[in-house]
Amino acid sequence: MTDKSIYAFGGGGAEGRGDQKELLGGKGAGLAEMSSLGIPVPPGFTITTEVCKYYHRNGQSYPEGHDEEFRGHLKRLEGLQSKRFGDPADPLLLSVRSGGPVSMPGMMDTILNLGLNSEIVEGMIAAGRDARFVRDCYRRLVQMYGDVVLEVPFDDFERILGAARERHGVELDSELSADALAEVTADYLALCEERGKPFPAAPLEQLRGAVDAVFESWENKRARSYRRLHGLSEDSGTAVNVQAMVFGNNGSDCATGVAFTRDPSSGERVVYGEYLTNAQGEDVVAGIRTPVSITASDGHGGLGAEFPQAHADLVAVCAKLEEHRREMQDVEFTIEASKLYMLQTRDGKRTGLAAARIAVEMVDEGRISMHEALLRVSGEQLAQLLAPVFKPEDKQSRIADGALLGRGLAAGPGAASGRIALTADRAAEMARSGPVILVRDETSPEDIVGMHASTGILTSRGGMTSHAAIVARGMGKPCIVGAGSLTVDEHAGELRVDNRTFREGDELSIDGTSGEVLAGALKPHPSEVLQAVVEGRPIESHTVRAFHQLMTWADETRRMRVRANADTPEDARVARLLGAQGIGLCRTEHMFFEDDRISWVRQVILTDSDETRDHALAQLLPEQQSDFEGIFETMAGLPVTVRLLDPPLHEFLPKEPKALAELAREMGIDATAVADRAEALAEFNPMLGHRGCRLGLTTPEIYDMQVEAITRAACGLAARGIDARPEIMVPLIGTVQEMVRLRERSETVVARVKSELGSDLAIPIGTMIEIPRAALVADKIAEHADFFSFGTNDLTQMAFGYSRDDAGRFLPQYVETGILPADPFEKLDIEGVGQLVRMACERGRATRRDLKIGICGEHGGEPSSITFFESCGLDYVSCSPYRVPVARLAAARATLAAD
Amino acid sequence: MTDKSIYAFGGGGAEGRGDQKELLGGKGAGLAEMSSLGIPVPPGFTITTEVCKYYHRNGQSYPEGHDEEFRGHLKRLEGLQSKRFGDPADPLLLSVRSGGPVSMPGMMDTILNLGLNSEIVEGMIAAGRDARFVRDCYRRLVQMYGDVVLEVPFDDFERILGAARERHGVELDSELSADALAEVTADYLALCEERGKPFPAAPLEQLRGAVDAVFESWENKRARSYRRLHGLSEDSGTAVNVQAMVFGNNGSDCATGVAFTRDPSSGERVVYGEYLTNAQGEDVVAGIRTPVSITASDGHGGLGAEFPQAHADLVAVCAKLEEHRREMQDVEFTIEASKLYMLQTRDGKRTGLAAARIAVEMVDEGRISMHEALLRVSGEQLAQLLAPVFKPEDKQSRIADGALLGRGLAAGPGAASGRIALTADRAAEMARSGPVILVRDETSPEDIVGMHASTGILTSRGGMTSHAAIVARGMGKPCIVGAGSLTVDEHAGELRVDNRTFREGDELSIDGTSGEVLAGALKPHPSEVLQAVVEGRPIESHTVRAFHQLMTWADETRRMRVRANADTPEDARVARLLGAQGIGLCRTEHMFFEDDRISWVRQVILTDSDETRDHALAQLLPEQQSDFEGIFETMAGLPVTVRLLDPPLHEFLPKEPKALAELAREMGIDATAVADRAEALAEFNPMLGHRGCRLGLTTPEIYDMQVEAITRAACGLAARGIDARPEIMVPLIGTVQEMVRLRERSETVVARVKSELGSDLAIPIGTMIEIPRAALVADKIAEHADFFSFGTNDLTQMAFGYSRDDAGRFLPQYVETGILPADPFEKLDIEGVGQLVRMACERGRATRRDLKIGICGEHGGEPSSITFFESCGLDYVSCSPYRVPVARLAAARATLAAD
Repeated sequence: MTDKSIYAFGGGGAEGRGDQKELLGGKGAGLAEMSSLGIPVPPGFTITTEVCKYYHRNGQSYPEGHDEEFRGHLKRLEGLQSKRFGDPADPLLLSVRSGGPVSMPGMMDTILNLGLNSEIVEGMIAAGRDARFVRDCYRRLVQMYGDVVLEVPFDDFERILGAARERHGVELDSELSADALAEVTADYLALCEERGKPFPAAPLEQLRGAVDAVFESWENKRARSYRRLHGLSEDSGTAVNVQAMVFGNNGSDCATGVAFTRDPSSGERVVYGEYLTNAQGEDVVAGIRTPVSITASDGHGGLGAEFPQAHADLVAVCAKLEEHRREMQDVEFTIEASKLYMLQTRDGKRTGLAAARIAVEMVDEGRISMHEALLRVSGEQLAQLLAPVFKPEDKQSRIADGALLGRGLAAGPGAASGRIALTADRAAEMARSGPVILVRDETSPEDIVGMHASTGILTSRGGMTSHAAIVARGMGKPCIVGAGSLTVDEHAGELRVDNRTFREGDELSIDGTSGEVLAGALKPHPSEVLQAVVEGRPIESHTVRAFHQLMTWADETRRMRVRANADTPEDARVARLLGAQGIGLCRTEHMFFEDDRISWVRQVILTDSDETRDHALAQLLPEQQSDFEGIFETMAGLPVTVRLLDPPLHEFLPKEPKALAELAREMGIDATAVADRAEALAEFNPMLGHRGCRLGLTTPEIYDMQVEAITRAACGLAARGIDARPEIMVPLIGTVQEMVRLRERSETVVARVKSELGSDLAIPIGTMIEIPRAALVADKIAEHADFFSFGTNDLTQMAFGYSRDDAGRFLPQYVETGILPADPFEKLDIEGVGQLVRMACERGRATRRDLKIGICGEHGGEPSSITFFESCGLDYVSCSPYRVPVARLAAARATLAAD
Repeated sequence: MTDKSIYAFGGGGAEGRGDQKELLGGKGAGLAEMSSLGIPVPPGFTITTEVCKYYHRNGQSYPEGHDEEFRGHLKRLEGLQSKRFGDPADPLLLSVRSGGPVSMPGMMDTILNLGLNSEIVEGMIAAGRDARFVRDCYRRLVQMYGDVVLEVPFDDFERILGAARERHGVELDSELSADALAEVTADYLALCEERGKPFPAAPLEQLRGAVDAVFESWENKRARSYRRLHGLSEDSGTAVNVQAMVFGNNGSDCATGVAFTRDPSSGERVVYGEYLTNAQGEDVVAGIRTPVSITASDGHGGLGAEFPQAHADLVAVCAKLEEHRREMQDVEFTIEASKLYMLQTRDGKRTGLAAARIAVEMVDEGRISMHEALLRVSGEQLAQLLAPVFKPEDKQSRIADGALLGRGLAAGPGAASGRIALTADRAAEMARSGPVILVRDETSPEDIVGMHASTGILTSRGGMTSHAAIVARGMGKPCIVGAGSLTVDEHAGELRVDNRTFREGDELSIDGTSGEVLAGALKPHPSEVLQAVVEGRPIESHTVRAFHQLMTWADETRRMRVRANADTPEDARVARLLGAQGIGLCRTEHMFFEDDRISWVRQVILTDSDETRDHALAQLLPEQQSDFEGIFETMAGLPVTVRLLDPPLHEFLPKEPKALAELAREMGIDATAVADRAEALAEFNPMLGHRGCRLGLTTPEIYDMQVEAITRAACGLAARGIDARPEIMVPLIGTVQEMVRLRERSETVVARVKSELGSDLAIPIGTMIEIPRAALVADKIAEHADFFSFGTNDLTQMAFGYSRDDAGRFLPQYVETGILPADPFEKLDIEGVGQLVRMACERGRATRRDLKIGICGEHGGEPSSITFFESCGLDYVSCSPYRVPVARLAAARATLAAD
């Protein structure tokens, strides 16, 4: 470790720097930085993360010389504040706060008012300090210290406090008198004594105990499991900040508050926040008094009216911090005797809308570069600009009518409304007649089908990694979890909120971006950005402008191209408007399901006669051709990768015996024969069954028809001067011979049609890489494929041996308990599946240097996966149309990350 | 190419050598070798494989100087035989035969009697040669040449010949007079003329045409597809042998025949074979006259009686060849004017029994080493010593009674008998009440279930790579394909053979080792070897002796250990007797199905109550413990790897709603709840579902119980002085965290039980490697696993994306058409799946140098796969008990191959 183990700050400067987050923690570095900038900060010192590491590596001991250093810093602090720690009349009081390089729930957070004991309390009161204030400070200290350091159960303290309130006939702690508080504190002290954990009266012992407790909490269970879940290093350690107390609760010229340097919802450049007069930080959190806005609002002049100087100072501090940190800040402050003290600064969390606007405006302001702006907006933030929304005016008017039922964690962005279903089965049933919101205490694997059927998901319990949250995010559905104000009574068929009762079928709205739950059905609307881009409405707004600006920068920056997965001309149109540079996956199976076609498809499947089959295929040919014409024309000038038929044939037959019998009657075939054939086609594991190129090889006539339809469509358009650029993609290749033979057969059909139509259009033929074995023999397959497109959904299924349809039974538990860092169907499993992707790229390009490689699985729109694909040198990613902007941004960020 | 393009043989020596198979082909090298040994061979010369390669690489042309060399060799031949090629009175006649380094069907084989034309025929007759003989030679030449070289359809020639037989009122070609033969030849010549492909009269043109035709046939479709199917090089080319004719059909002092230097069925050291007096080779093949045995038999003195000198010479030649080649030979000979000429020698094909006996006896005779002996007996040959058999006396007596219905290709060794089923559905149905032989024209994917249900499979059509052959071998069932004498009339429900009719339900026997189909049900018996080894009967036979000797040598030679997959004490006992050095896979699921247990298992699955579940598990614990005790005791001193529960829970529930309802009633649970639970457990792709360690993590109580049962069983036995060596194997690990957690949990249970019982038994904990991802992260998994055991069945399913239960729909076609070289569930796919195996070995050992690695998939008993496992450095293979001897031999051969 470094020689110096403690860094002073405040009092006109700092020993540490703002960029020393690793050593000083985020909080310590922020305090050092503010001190250096001359911003008023109560002085203090930071014990480094190195000390924490030493402490744990050396049997809970401190490095040599640490104690001396510690005493030196304490003495300096006493000098600065002209008070002595432990002085019985006018003591220096201290706070101890943890602060690692990354903020982490589960660790000991804060202990205030250290340095008090019964003797000192009496001394201070005797010296003229307000008795109620002093006694309350002491009461708070003993409670916090007892709970956090001594580990006496919190509830036991609360019980004593509650008893006191009752005894004295008051409702709020703040109504307890000085004497009552003294009683409470005495009971607290007795409680600790009783539990064999006496509260240390000696101030230095208090201070040391608090510091030890912070370091101990680094290794507690919750902190360790948090680190494991979030892939954080076990080695970084935490720092401890010891700081002189300032009091926001010492009279009406005191206050405490939090602020953002810009509006974290809209991104507008204005100091935004809340404060409470005559209060300590924990009072804000407790939520008993409602903080008021810093900015003036109806009936309130804001901080500027109440504390004009402090407000002016705060605005200046915010400006200085932004200028210095080049990022929007989230600060905590206290006003004591009308003077402003800053307690913390850190980069502020913000909504997607705000992130986009702030990033773009900071470039305008000359603070950051365009590349930095791209790195400041995550894909998920951008996605919020595209998610469906409730109109703010709709929401406000409903809220004004009392429709707000509560808030939960915003687990899946987007707005949704529908009828309440309280069980998954009911959800699946009700979904047939309109949108449904599934409301549960929590969801479980048995609920998967119902979740699929629902428009939105709401739970009363669970956190951001609960089953509901994981599954909903995977499905891309609006979702709120942990909305604790709701009581779900499945048996009564009721949802209760406070004293209101809703029944199944009643309407409900959820805003998964904000976490708000509202009674009644609000109408979800396309976001402003989608209205402007896709609907072509002339909307001028900061959001729309920021979106366009970011997209322009992203497009200038990224190396990979972005395509969309689209099966219809309409999807293709939307994709193109959203910036898709081609179609990476055009599935053909949906085309087989349309009403007038499915009976021909079934004839192909059910007949034994070549003639009947050929006739049926001849009926399908012009239909497929016209499907392709629509898409190729929409995407004129851009490539369209058409995947030949993929699903097993039984998917095209009805499931019930009755429907099968009817089908037989319709087609004039023997019912038993049809039933036999359907049974013969049924599979134990359809996912691993007779589908994709396997079908293409055993029933080649279907692929022949599709290849002919593609070729006819493209050549026909070309003859009309439309630049159609089809690419034929063979699914499910696992061996080189499959590719060799299907390529040969397809080329024959293409050549025949081209010669008939006198066309010389080039039609590349490539394959999906979605079978693990294909990745292993990619060098050989590349000899016969013009392009690869990773089907990472199937590749993930087979590499893990997970059926996506069934994995809901264990996958959420795997993610919740950290067996897997994330759902591998949502974020690509770089450790395992990623090896196959990289291998296939390297091997494929080893034999075919100019092999074009893309990805068309759902990971193609997921930012962390896109970063990985960039590192593999993919040529493009392809995702669903509405994810295209996210992918464009993510690709740009990936390019920057790779530089 | 080398300068010399033609090698002479015969006439007292040879230019080539017996070891020049690559250059001279097998036939040419054999002729050269025999010539050098002074064995009488009609002289000739061999045009090398290099010329063939040159021919195809240079637009069907010959190398410079080739023509001159050719003429030189022809001149030398004329000198040796004192005859001139094309002499109109006493011409040299020649044969042309192809012969590559590897014999290959599909290539042009033989043209005899080259050098005749109408003028020469008349000249020879004028010079006193027998007219009928000469005219027949000419007739044969034109027919063979017309068919093979000129490609005039064979049937057209046969039609002319048939018309002549009819016209002259005879039944056999040999009854046609010289004049009639002259007519036929004239018609042949006219036919060729008519087809625009006149027969060349000039002898030299005939000869050159024949040589060209051999080279051309190297590239014909059948030859190419054969090479592709058998993985033969496209580059080896074929040689051509031009040889002076000798005539076995020139009178009663002439004969032609084939012989083996030892009996190819039993391996007995005796010259064994057949011959025909006054006949040419093709007459033997045509099967019109029945050849007689070389050895004396009932009513016939054999070759020794008829041709004493030639017979003595043949015996001497055979001895000389064996001495020289150190291998049993298959020879062709002709006797002309009582003098023996050898036409060919090659290593002889033999049955498994013969292979074993010959190998062992050749070591006794000092001809070959013990290692060579091991390399002379393939695993499949050894398997024949273990396959069920009909007693020869049973079979002979039935055949004597006329029970032999025909012969087909021996596609799956072993004897089976049962009732005839003519459709797969009927087979599945009938199999419930006893063994069934499925008899079809050919099988298709729809028949898979019926094939599974049948004891043996018989088809009237198809070859060794037909659907039936591939699937039956994969299932390890006796199978005969291509039994052309059978007519299957599915609609009439009849099987007809000649004029006999069998109905469904009639009894039939098939010997898949010999290809014989017999009426009636013969009883299959364990083979002699199994009777001796497993039943412990004191059998003294050459076969049993050879088996023991080979096994001893194999055990001395091999590096890898061989274990068996066994779930019961009885299987374990058999495995141990057959040489298993442990149990590599003891499945535990079957133990859950036993009558008195399944209801407890179902309670575990169906209950929501922890108490009920714990109670049910407590009932199962002693049962499992006693299962394990039985196996551990049987295998005392040897390791037993127990796999924790693998299948998904729904496999333990009844399928039909009725049975479920009954179950609910029995268990006193609500029927709807049971049905709901069963439905909730059902899976779309159970293979990729909630099973193996996934179940172990979500329902940990089951594994806890199993681990406890294993530990109690082993510690209990150890306390009684029995050396139990359990190993706990966790199935389906795909991520390192699964392994970490299940290992931790298992270790806790083991430690608890050991501490309770005061035992210090070490119980290793390892994992299956059967998920592709596990192979990719094997380095990390190895940190927490004491051993790996490859589950190559599942690994193959997932690497290929094939469901084994469904792949029957396309896999046989894949193998038949060469998309895959073999069924990857039968032979390990080294190209793809093998990469994962090798990767897992390398990565696993990189982090844990002493990692024990085995394989317990079905590939563990398959020789080519075993060779690959040796190359990966596996510690052991594990296979079904009856495959253990095969694996011991294959492991030894693999060790030798690796040296």
